[in-house]
Amino acid sequence: MLERIRLRSRAPYSGAEYGYYVGELAPSTSASSGGEDVECDVLYPGCLLDADETSRAKLLKKHITRSSTQKLVCVRETPELYAKAHEKYIASIPREATAWVRKILSLEKERERLLHCDDDFLLNVDSKWTTHPDCDGADRATWRAHSSVTDLYCLGLCVREDFKSLRDARAEHLPLLRAMLRKGRAVIEDIYGVNAEEMRVFVHYPPQFYHFHVHYQALSAKEQGCACERAHSLEDIIDNLERDGDHYARANLSLKMGERDALYAFYNDAATRA
Amino acid sequence: MLERIRLRSRAPYSGAEYGYYVGELAPSTSASSGGEDVECDVLYPGCLLDADETSRAKLLKKHITRSSTQKLVCVRETPELYAKAHEKYIASIPREATAWVRKILSLEKERERLLHCDDDFLLNVDSKWTTHPDCDGADRATWRAHSSVTDLYCLGLCVREDFKSLRDARAEHLPLLRAMLRKGRAVIEDIYGVNAEEMRVFVHYPPQFYHFHVHYQALSAKEQGCACERAHSLEDIIDNLERDGDHYARANLSLKMGERDALYAFYNDAATRA
Repeated sequence: MLERIRLRSRAPYSGAEYGYYVGELAPSTSASSGGEDVECDVLYPGCLLDADETSRAKLLKKHITRSSTQKLVCVRETPELYAKAHEKYIASIPREATAWVRKILSLEKERERLLHCDDDFLLNVDSKWTTHPDCDGADRATWRAHSSVTDLYCLGLCVREDFKSLRDARAEHLPLLRAMLRKGRAVIEDIYGVNAEEMRVFVHYPPQFYHFHVHYQALSAKEQGCACERAHSLEDIIDNLERDGDHYARANLSLKMGERDALYAFYNDAATRA
Repeated sequence: MLERIRLRSRAPYSGAEYGYYVGELAPSTSASSGGEDVECDVLYPGCLLDADETSRAKLLKKHITRSSTQKLVCVRETPELYAKAHEKYIASIPREATAWVRKILSLEKERERLLHCDDDFLLNVDSKWTTHPDCDGADRATWRAHSSVTDLYCLGLCVREDFKSLRDARAEHLPLLRAMLRKGRAVIEDIYGVNAEEMRVFVHYPPQFYHFHVHYQALSAKEQGCACERAHSLEDIIDNLERDGDHYARANLSLKMGERDALYAFYNDAATRA
């Protein structure tokens, strides 16, 4: 059956980390064999090319786990549990996992998806915005009020590399966070005509990758990844830090994971030893 | 065409406020008339029966607006804006809007859906949990680990009537909130076998009705109404109040509304006058 699969790349292609392909089965010569309606998604994590064998095995396992169906569990992470489990998990992640972020920040990759960059952050069309007009060809003026803006999804990446996740956020990050909120919204309104009241701007905890980033999603888009146990409104984050610059050093945070995720193993290990 | 519609009630029937019906078109005698695949949902808000004409008109309009497709907008509600707009909106809602809540709390209605009640709160099977086994007939022992628990959705209603929404939450509510979190989870685990790590427990702001209530939803269920700009984890609420008993008197809160909602009109009016 494998030789009957025909792969085609699925738009939009994400130049940095992933190649997305959809595979279709070629019609069988034997009418009775069936199976012509099988379709498979192929994910090709390009970031693994530069990694050594150990890192590659680790990152590949993470990709497979993330794409598999697994039971979700949500625990409450105290600052102590963060230090005992989560921080160790983060330290175990090979640096290659965020190679694609550095390639975007250096403008080596995904320039065609670039919406804005300055000394604080860079704003890109997120690869989850699959209905976006072709980034390579189109005149950007046609993006404004394009019918696909109802699916708007953009990604903001901070420039500094030492800000891993919401847990690290402190008063010193306030100027950066305010810039990502205000400038990010302004750029999106300017390019797409979607204004601040029509989108949610949020941060995942735990994040999918440990380089601080922000999600910009139209309220009209299909809700994905914005459930309250994992998504934190950037406006709430800024308010929390304005009240207490060390809020995220002291706060408990919900931690939703798949029960086969490596993070959950670190968590269980810490809970057992406690 | 109207006379060809055949209504049947859609399980589960919510005895208190709503009758849910699905209407199907009877096959037409003329083959060319088409339209046989039209299906209509009929919502019969029983709470309006006891209301006077003005209240009925107001509540009916709210039901129609809520069931219509409309653009969503999300604004940031300061405490000042709450006082100027939201509080006035709440005061304008006829008392009949929560008559169904009082009927449930007095055990006059929905006893078959009752999971727990004490002096603090009552826990019910939410009408959004449509795959739940028939509440009237089934032996409750069969509910435990039933295949439908992946869709688990329960509703906790506090007993006191003076606690309208998250905006009212103060230190004095902490014992109630802790009971709704801990006891609510324990009852659900006992009856359905779904444990604390497998569900999100959250509160809507703005709520759909102004009598404080809590949502209990399995993480495995289809995500609905839990996006971060409207859903607040009960654990976060408790932590916020433990840090500052007046947190919700001082905090800014996101306010997502339909642009035809009455609340949005109050908000726009206040913004114009400011």
